[in-house]
Amino acid sequence: MEDKQLAAEAAVKYIQTGMTIGLGSGSTVNYMLEALAKRIKEGMDVKGIPSSVKTEKLARKLGIPLIGYSKATKIDLAIDGADEVNSSLQLTKGGGGSLVREKIIDVAATKLIIIVDYSKMVTHLGSFPLPVEVVPFGWEKTAERIAAFGCNPKLRKSDQDVFISDNHNYILDCQFDLIEQPEQLHEQLKQTVGVVETGLFVNMTDMVIAAKNGIIDTRHRG
Amino acid sequence: MEDKQLAAEAAVKYIQTGMTIGLGSGSTVNYMLEALAKRIKEGMDVKGIPSSVKTEKLARKLGIPLIGYSKATKIDLAIDGADEVNSSLQLTKGGGGSLVREKIIDVAATKLIIIVDYSKMVTHLGSFPLPVEVVPFGWEKTAERIAAFGCNPKLRKSDQDVFISDNHNYILDCQFDLIEQPEQLHEQLKQTVGVVETGLFVNMTDMVIAAKNGIIDTRHRG
Repeated sequence: MEDKQLAAEAAVKYIQTGMTIGLGSGSTVNYMLEALAKRIKEGMDVKGIPSSVKTEKLARKLGIPLIGYSKATKIDLAIDGADEVNSSLQLTKGGGGSLVREKIIDVAATKLIIIVDYSKMVTHLGSFPLPVEVVPFGWEKTAERIAAFGCNPKLRKSDQDVFISDNHNYILDCQFDLIEQPEQLHEQLKQTVGVVETGLFVNMTDMVIAAKNGIIDTRHRG
Repeated sequence: MEDKQLAAEAAVKYIQTGMTIGLGSGSTVNYMLEALAKRIKEGMDVKGIPSSVKTEKLARKLGIPLIGYSKATKIDLAIDGADEVNSSLQLTKGGGGSLVREKIIDVAATKLIIIVDYSKMVTHLGSFPLPVEVVPFGWEKTAERIAAFGCNPKLRKSDQDVFISDNHNYILDCQFDLIEQPEQLHEQLKQTVGVVETGLFVNMTDMVIAAKNGIIDTRHRG
């Protein structure tokens, strides 16, 4: 079994019947959706809230019952992936382009479990370019403001065209050498006019499940 | 001459040939556009950057030369309106629904002049409901988070439909009793997941020109 799939299977063990589950996005989450669909076929009763159009499509195909986010009274558990995880359980997310919806759902969940293969575990965030979602109007000037924080923002493309997020915005992939203070950087970027959200997820994660060569490493807040 | 028009005429005196001008939005700004168009017909050479689709349409009709915001190397002066102005030259804006573009342009301008009729001058901000632009996804939960800051957020409608901003977002009109610390409130709201921008404009205004019964009151930072 692949490491991503191992992490996904380990996370599904935390899902109990009756729960409303935030469904993240990405290849590791896709394994989780498959494992969850299997439990549902065996009789488990859960509702899922998808964090992206891609996840919604796959979940429907797999027969996972869905409800809209605005209809949910609470999210018991969210399971999501990440592009980088540091030792304080802070994350970089947004490589797939769904960071705003993912953050809205992940922050609303009573518990957030992040599933990754071990290659995503890092000492410091920053090797992966930080995705920042911005309002299209005046994005070039917003990029200049963001660059002043010590990075090189690059407008995300999809083939030849500008990549458009689920919220009709643009994404700047911002290469920092090293993100020493993720919380502070997030706050400064989020305060910037034109910035909608950043891919830094701080003070949100309750548990990280990382798999490597068949070994499952679980870390959680004490 | 109406007070709004008086304030507008007074502001146009600060426009010099060769300048690039940020063009705000609203009824007082519309008087400014008319006054500016007259100067242009008399030979003044300026370029305008409109902050809303409405302003763009009127400026074109009046023959004001326009350039795109992303094409401008700098904005020498922005002239904009406001819904409320306090004695520290802090503003509430966004009644017209263009607060994001207005803020992007106003903050980028070397100098910002706000023009109002005197009824907009207040001791404390907050009588006018504060507009907050939010991502449509999960707006109900975002509204709950905003309400926790001590207000009653109301989704803006346009006739029967939800009002959609120029950036494809929703606007929540948030009735506070009194906004005692505008800067702090802005920062807290802007940090909130799902919030794109707030209508609080702090530390941006260089001059306010307010007119009442034919008297022009000019206030600027010392």
